[in-house]
Amino acid sequence: MAIVLGIDPGSRITGYGLIESSSGKLKYVASGRIKVAEKKDLAERLGLIYDGISEIVHKYNPTELAVEKIFVSKSAPSALKLGQARGAAIIAGSRQGAILSEYEARKIKQAVVGTGAATKNQVQLMVKSLLALSELPKEDAADALGIAICHIHTHFSLGFISGKAKTLGFSRGRYSQKVEKA
Amino acid sequence: MAIVLGIDPGSRITGYGLIESSSGKLKYVASGRIKVAEKKDLAERLGLIYDGISEIVHKYNPTELAVEKIFVSKSAPSALKLGQARGAAIIAGSRQGAILSEYEARKIKQAVVGTGAATKNQVQLMVKSLLALSELPKEDAADALGIAICHIHTHFSLGFISGKAKTLGFSRGRYSQKVEKA
Repeated sequence: MAIVLGIDPGSRITGYGLIESSSGKLKYVASGRIKVAEKKDLAERLGLIYDGISEIVHKYNPTELAVEKIFVSKSAPSALKLGQARGAAIIAGSRQGAILSEYEARKIKQAVVGTGAATKNQVQLMVKSLLALSELPKEDAADALGIAICHIHTHFSLGFISGKAKTLGFSRGRYSQKVEKA
Repeated sequence: MAIVLGIDPGSRITGYGLIESSSGKLKYVASGRIKVAEKKDLAERLGLIYDGISEIVHKYNPTELAVEKIFVSKSAPSALKLGQARGAAIIAGSRQGAILSEYEARKIKQAVVGTGAATKNQVQLMVKSLLALSELPKEDAADALGIAICHIHTHFSLGFISGKAKTLGFSRGRYSQKVEKA
């Protein structure tokens, strides 16, 4: 059994999602967002991310940590801010020994939705479906859960996703058209 | 009495310097560099910075933390790496309650050498002189000590620096000519 913590770090909102993988099945554990007010000072902002993730790590003791691999397309000032938030999240997430893996955004979408060009909304819908959630998870939390799903998919070679994606119509029809136009 | 921890974070080398300020006098406490091998994985690299600074904070219990304020002139990928290292260092440095201040590079050089256009070597020489060190501190450690001196200079309005700078010939002559040509 593995407990995977997916993190989607950001200077304002850091999403997190925990999924248990056991005997080829995914079990939703927890997810949420750490929101940081911009007016706080830098040490305080980074401390909130660090404390938030530390609390989760302490509570759920994840064995693996997964984050999106960044190929910087943003401006240098944004990259600096993202880097600081990412540093805070990764340190807190790996403190108790969870092993870090990084995945490209395209690979995460591919693993969750079945296409690397999926929209944010498609990721939310597939995450809801795959984890049998009663509500659509918020964007950042859904992204974090998607990263965790990608990690489990990569490491445990689950074959369930493409079937689900077809059931939801992502492989053709309304959703795939959206993708083609994007 | 204040104990100021200056940090010059970097993804490969993070410099640190501790200075005690008491009754208008500067007392060197400690300085050094945390070197991180590039081949290690990201979580491990950030963990080394975090652990290194945490150890120092635990040992010397600084009351104040000072880092260089970054106006990003670097590329976005460099900014991301620097941001991650900076996040790790700031969290570790402020964990026990030290208050963070940030200073522009120009202001640090102004405070230490007397001119915002000072060279790295001039900063090293002035740091050595101001703290009565027996050896020239290494570049990153000297920068970190310089940041701490700048913080003390800003908060405690010490008048000793301009005199020292003149004694060392930074205000005119060989060093200032170097500056003008730079």
